[in-house]
Amino acid sequence: MIPFGQRLALAVSQKKNPVCVGIDPRASSLPESLKPKSGASPESIIESIEKFCFEIVDTVADLVPIVKPQSAFFEELGPLGMLALHRIVRYASQRGLLVVMDAKRGDIGTTAVAYANAYLGAGAPGSPAYSPWGADALTINPYLGADTLEPFTQRCASSGSGVFVLVKTSNPGSSFLQDQPLEDGRTVSQKVADTVESLSFATRGELGYGDIGAVVGATYPKQLEEMRTRMPSTWILIPGYGAQGGSAQDVKLGLDTRGLGAIVNSSRGIIFAYEQTRYQTSPYQATRWTESVRKATLDMIEALS
Amino acid sequence: MIPFGQRLALAVSQKKNPVCVGIDPRASSLPESLKPKSGASPESIIESIEKFCFEIVDTVADLVPIVKPQSAFFEELGPLGMLALHRIVRYASQRGLLVVMDAKRGDIGTTAVAYANAYLGAGAPGSPAYSPWGADALTINPYLGADTLEPFTQRCASSGSGVFVLVKTSNPGSSFLQDQPLEDGRTVSQKVADTVESLSFATRGELGYGDIGAVVGATYPKQLEEMRTRMPSTWILIPGYGAQGGSAQDVKLGLDTRGLGAIVNSSRGIIFAYEQTRYQTSPYQATRWTESVRKATLDMIEALS
Repeated sequence: MIPFGQRLALAVSQKKNPVCVGIDPRASSLPESLKPKSGASPESIIESIEKFCFEIVDTVADLVPIVKPQSAFFEELGPLGMLALHRIVRYASQRGLLVVMDAKRGDIGTTAVAYANAYLGAGAPGSPAYSPWGADALTINPYLGADTLEPFTQRCASSGSGVFVLVKTSNPGSSFLQDQPLEDGRTVSQKVADTVESLSFATRGELGYGDIGAVVGATYPKQLEEMRTRMPSTWILIPGYGAQGGSAQDVKLGLDTRGLGAIVNSSRGIIFAYEQTRYQTSPYQATRWTESVRKATLDMIEALS
Repeated sequence: MIPFGQRLALAVSQKKNPVCVGIDPRASSLPESLKPKSGASPESIIESIEKFCFEIVDTVADLVPIVKPQSAFFEELGPLGMLALHRIVRYASQRGLLVVMDAKRGDIGTTAVAYANAYLGAGAPGSPAYSPWGADALTINPYLGADTLEPFTQRCASSGSGVFVLVKTSNPGSSFLQDQPLEDGRTVSQKVADTVESLSFATRGELGYGDIGAVVGATYPKQLEEMRTRMPSTWILIPGYGAQGGSAQDVKLGLDTRGLGAIVNSSRGIIFAYEQTRYQTSPYQATRWTESVRKATLDMIEALS
């Protein structure tokens, strides 16, 4: 089984770009052709959302290495939403995409083991890489402590999966804890980063990157640059590009000279591209919304090249 | 709609104890009468687990004020496990129990809104307190920043729900971030506690407690005592009793003189009581496992009285 860090390097190299498409569906933003009628049943709303996500996957599968479904938007739909999420993850895998489940899980002991078993592993039933949700990687939260990362890193090793540990998030309030200086001179996020780097270093492959990644937002470019240096063996998942304000120049600070070492996520900027004026001009009509999505994906790839 | 903090005070007063039963099912620990046969299908394993959880609810519904399903153990079962979780939460509500969903969610902006909408609200469909998962409260993680708590506190206000913010967890590695001293002299967990207290103070009701709670483990009694003083308006959810090592003396430090202000969780110690020698003696046979569960619940209630 090829470790996640190496599979990601291969996928980024093959697709020649580090773009991660965030799958964050909202019923209110679906294109006209899929928008639920007022009074639609919850079941038919979820059906529309699922169709939308499948079309997104079809539209970007040949272009990008990885997609990132946001679990919250499916959990918000209740158990049927979770069934849809399950099918979307499987479909993306079938289409050759890596999948990082953005669920920001974190807990202690056997509970952390349960989360790791739930999400990490895109293999067939019966294989050591099988998990019910079938993701290649999972975002996780370090607040509970370094010991709570272990069940995840162990599962990564046994299933060829990866995790991305929250280090520095893209929101304005991320300074509340993450930027706080500790007595030893490091900030909270630097302390987490050092732990992540040591875990990733221990699993690094031929190209120098391991399986334990970090989330570092594009909205704080200086910190992104510092984190790139601080975590030389660590894949960085960079949210905050586009809609949240991070520019192409900003996110390039997370990449190494080979264009590896980071994946850059865009969610709304790609999947709802048809809402933007510049993607609404002919031939990107409302009924041909996937053309807008494809054009926005290609634009992002070009901006990062 | 009565706010969560007041509903919890009422429930604890009526049941005359602060016991929270943690619903953390594992197929390998089910009683003999429900244990899946080797080679059982995933569907029949989930069916057994669901039956077990319903029986747990039936067994403790007249004794305790609140139950706490651990989402991870249902997520581990895949989408069908999530359907079972959904039914278990509804059933517990129908049986008059408050439900805190232990899912430790946390994210930014609209994603945090989605998590809040997903879980917070045990009302009927169409009411402002409706949520697909139907919980009265949710555990949440503060690492992303104080701004990321707002969508949850707003949802609490609009739906009569509550949250419990992770402050100091019960695991050995919780010191990694939570005990770290900051430049202002507080530790990370104290800083989080002060934010939680100010949010809870703003929502406090007649009995002095608000809707924004805190998780503080029983395994660090000194910190529990300090946190009780530091957060006078805040309900504390205390994990770590029993199996994890916290004693009755320890957890009493989290209660006020009226026996309010904290709920004390036990999971394995109650739901798998029949695995303990002291609950296996006649008449607590394997086939009468709910009697062991009931006896263990009553013993915990007595120990905390």
